[in-house]
Amino acid sequence: MSTPVSGTASAWQLGERALAERIRARFAPRPGVLVVGIGDDAAVATPVRGALEVFTTDALVQGVHFDPAFSTYEDVGFKALAVNVSDIAAMGATSRLALLSLVIPERLSTAEIDALLDGFAAMAAEANVTVAGGNLARSPAGQNDNGVLIVDVTVVGSVRPRKILTRSAGRPGDALYVTGQVGAAAAGLDWLRTQPGNAGREPQDPLIAECVARHRRPAARIRIGTLLGRNDAATTCMDLSDGLADAVTQIATQSGTGAVIDAAALPIHPGAGQWFSGRGLDPLLATLSGGDDYELLFGVPTKRRGRLRHVRQQSRGVPLTRIGELTKDRAIVLKRNGRLERMPPGFAHF
Amino acid sequence: MSTPVSGTASAWQLGERALAERIRARFAPRPGVLVVGIGDDAAVATPVRGALEVFTTDALVQGVHFDPAFSTYEDVGFKALAVNVSDIAAMGATSRLALLSLVIPERLSTAEIDALLDGFAAMAAEANVTVAGGNLARSPAGQNDNGVLIVDVTVVGSVRPRKILTRSAGRPGDALYVTGQVGAAAAGLDWLRTQPGNAGREPQDPLIAECVARHRRPAARIRIGTLLGRNDAATTCMDLSDGLADAVTQIATQSGTGAVIDAAALPIHPGAGQWFSGRGLDPLLATLSGGDDYELLFGVPTKRRGRLRHVRQQSRGVPLTRIGELTKDRAIVLKRNGRLERMPPGFAHF
Repeated sequence: MSTPVSGTASAWQLGERALAERIRARFAPRPGVLVVGIGDDAAVATPVRGALEVFTTDALVQGVHFDPAFSTYEDVGFKALAVNVSDIAAMGATSRLALLSLVIPERLSTAEIDALLDGFAAMAAEANVTVAGGNLARSPAGQNDNGVLIVDVTVVGSVRPRKILTRSAGRPGDALYVTGQVGAAAAGLDWLRTQPGNAGREPQDPLIAECVARHRRPAARIRIGTLLGRNDAATTCMDLSDGLADAVTQIATQSGTGAVIDAAALPIHPGAGQWFSGRGLDPLLATLSGGDDYELLFGVPTKRRGRLRHVRQQSRGVPLTRIGELTKDRAIVLKRNGRLERMPPGFAHF
Repeated sequence: MSTPVSGTASAWQLGERALAERIRARFAPRPGVLVVGIGDDAAVATPVRGALEVFTTDALVQGVHFDPAFSTYEDVGFKALAVNVSDIAAMGATSRLALLSLVIPERLSTAEIDALLDGFAAMAAEANVTVAGGNLARSPAGQNDNGVLIVDVTVVGSVRPRKILTRSAGRPGDALYVTGQVGAAAAGLDWLRTQPGNAGREPQDPLIAECVARHRRPAARIRIGTLLGRNDAATTCMDLSDGLADAVTQIATQSGTGAVIDAAALPIHPGAGQWFSGRGLDPLLATLSGGDDYELLFGVPTKRRGRLRHVRQQSRGVPLTRIGELTKDRAIVLKRNGRLERMPPGFAHF
């Protein structure tokens, strides 16, 4: 039983056990998914018959990947799961289970923890993911700061053999496609960072507001990733966590090909285009280098174009835009106004 | 390709990509274990036919779970995996795969990262675990400190259905056993903390040296956990990460029983007994409350005692000591010199 405390009390005051119990109560599993759930030495689940297991882990670190002045704790919880679910989708796989490892600073209140869990639960419901377990640890305070919050997540998924979409399976001649629109998350973060006093405000311009929302809560392309795998529509796939330039480079390099991207074809979010232009930046380069878009980049061989049509019919309005192709020549280039440029570097966290 | 840098250079200078490549090279998987390994959006593995999947996650946080003055980075890497493998063993399961998520402060050198990876690899070899993937993130520096190192690990294991050892499967009358010896890790940490200048030294007394070694590199009871499950020798099991008092309380509470522990029967490590006595502490209470022993506590019903003999024959000299039993009466007590005392609280990280 959890000790009753006010929402403004430090989560530490609850103690590790009561906090673990609070999380267990929040994520009561649907019956049948887990053989053993939260509260034992480890969780136990039944594997999906005939499927392979897929694993990924990704952490959000306060001050590196998020700023509590720019995002609510609900946003942080949502995004921490979304970025992992996006990795599973980029393999053509389906997310099943999540483990939530929290490193918690002393000043974090129980209300803030609850908000984080709410956001995590919202994404878990969207992705049909069961929270199977996790870990709680204290974040030590420095001499002049209170320690940082770290949300480290592992997601387990499943995929049928021969339906896996790897980064290395591209071949020269494969057309490259991207889901949705790109550049919005980078523009949204830039708006938050450059406008004094923007932290607590919402942009008045609805297009910029979309960009800020995309930074806070990326739309992991769960459905499309699975459809691309199941329908054998794509060979290679990767998510744009570190930006489009990085993803094109990774797929081409790991596939042993080059790539040509057609600048005019890129589905740059109109808010991002407007924002970067207004800042005197090249919207194309800012978009290519910007991270945190969790769209998918994928390759489609010519003979599979028909299969892509099936995916498009089920994509619920998410655009799938052809932006270039993989080439035999190993160069990775951008075609703009009939001229070839070198691809800019991707986004790097460090 | 990794940039050549001296061992004293900051790992950050390598950059995220080169550091990821260094880790991938260090953990080249044995052929056949992974369908897709480190370097894609997610790892893909073939499940063990007919087995259930087991998952656990546990983090070591600098300043909370380890102190670089007391342990080498090799010790930290070893222990970060050992504490997870211990959780899998406590389910009667076998560890298969590990994911390594690092949050790295700027001052950590490449030599220190390499040492951490060496320790992790040593434990992985011991537990027959394949490193399937992971994540790298920057640990932000505070105003007057350089940020802390966090080693967050997820381990995936497998277990046959009906061979799972849960905390809740104990029944009144089950005898309680513990593996190995207890109290050593707590005594070793206490020696490091209380003796000025001990940080870099080794204890002259070989018994105390054993305690310090146990704090730095716990002996996860991988083999015995699996044997207990496979041979149907135990019903309930838990590792002593938060101490023996905590483990007895967890098993009894989750099983809906009480427990009586016989103080005279406890296999207290002689170095721990000697150290705590010399400090004027009650060795029994210090041992019961101390954390970081990764021994196993398990329950054996009367009719399974014969099966326990089979486990004992294969335990390679690790003692299995009967220390008490689960009771119908819900009280959790310690029997000392013919009198009953309340069980002290377990070790709490916060």
